[in-house]
Amino acid sequence: MNVLVIGANGQIGRLLTRKLKDHAAHDVLAGVRKEEQKQAYENEGIKSRFIDLEGSIKDMEKAMDGVTAVVFAAGSGGHTGADKTMMVDLDGAVKSIEAAKNAGVKRYVMVSAINADDREYWSYNMEGNGIGGYYFAAKYYADVWLENSGLDYTVIRPTLLVNEPGTGKVEATAHLRQEGKKLEIPREDVANLTVASLDHDNTIGKSFDANQGGIDVDEAVKNL
Amino acid sequence: MNVLVIGANGQIGRLLTRKLKDHAAHDVLAGVRKEEQKQAYENEGIKSRFIDLEGSIKDMEKAMDGVTAVVFAAGSGGHTGADKTMMVDLDGAVKSIEAAKNAGVKRYVMVSAINADDREYWSYNMEGNGIGGYYFAAKYYADVWLENSGLDYTVIRPTLLVNEPGTGKVEATAHLRQEGKKLEIPREDVANLTVASLDHDNTIGKSFDANQGGIDVDEAVKNL
Repeated sequence: MNVLVIGANGQIGRLLTRKLKDHAAHDVLAGVRKEEQKQAYENEGIKSRFIDLEGSIKDMEKAMDGVTAVVFAAGSGGHTGADKTMMVDLDGAVKSIEAAKNAGVKRYVMVSAINADDREYWSYNMEGNGIGGYYFAAKYYADVWLENSGLDYTVIRPTLLVNEPGTGKVEATAHLRQEGKKLEIPREDVANLTVASLDHDNTIGKSFDANQGGIDVDEAVKNL
Repeated sequence: MNVLVIGANGQIGRLLTRKLKDHAAHDVLAGVRKEEQKQAYENEGIKSRFIDLEGSIKDMEKAMDGVTAVVFAAGSGGHTGADKTMMVDLDGAVKSIEAAKNAGVKRYVMVSAINADDREYWSYNMEGNGIGGYYFAAKYYADVWLENSGLDYTVIRPTLLVNEPGTGKVEATAHLRQEGKKLEIPREDVANLTVASLDHDNTIGKSFDANQGGIDVDEAVKNL
């Protein structure tokens, strides 16, 4: 597939873009927001496209010319307020989904967040954990939009993202039993899961939780 | 109908609740968030229900017992941040829509805002007008949720709300031609339009813009 990574300059995006570059079955386009990011990727021999999540659906559509799969690995970042979360993590994602539909892109993989599908978690129980419920609300509404879009979607909901190197082993399941587990996962393994989702079509139409674990990524994804 | 007004303590909600109280064809329940608001309504002989938009769908469902129509006239208010906008104006509204479905309420009228359905307006052109694009985004996503809910919906998108007394005359149309017009409407006329929407079933399944104008409210609504 010819995969456009939206948020290629983010932490997961950078790992994912390089993995896709080295993958025999896929080509990659780094979706970036700034000229210097574009230049850096081109210098590495990786093609890139401008994509601004605060821009228009039409411009996104153009950026998807020739693309056969989109991965949404972007985020407004923890330092921005709820307004940016609304306009980027929710509306930016929704615009990219609409752009994919308009551009005839069939496949769309969303990097979401654990518990985004559990309103009880983010609506009532967010006191003091440092992340606003609104972040999960934004992810929730974007995920639901994708699930209802008619696209060949996959939604990956990783637990707490950490920067340790990936192990290539995970736990992936529709709804993770969270009790008694260390709920974190290396960003690199989220990138691995994203590649595996693109590789295995049984992930189409599925949304799943992902944590560190003991099962090879490919195996874990095939078992979904 | 037995109409639950969510946001009965808001400016439109107060006008609407009293109009419904005096309406021969409807009974009204004032949906409020605080004990003193409940007491104030009860003292006026108006029945009330607790409804907390930051609470659970289940509690909202209980508040809708015996209700046959819901009007959403609530809002987190201009003084709160985007996080409250997300959790009240968007997620609170969506929860109330889900609660209505669960409770078997068929009819749902949403008080939205002009241009909420026009992303070009709120996504790119909001600089300097004092309202964050995220407010319109919240209204947009709530409106779309309602339109796809399967409920007998009506979405009213008024222009700038002002406190002048209503004239009983409006312009109501699917998409207002805005050029060269004074874009404001008395809150009382929005309340009048809401009552008229409940009175006339041709408004079911319709979303429309509303501005001050020269046509009797009932006539304007019947012409939609």
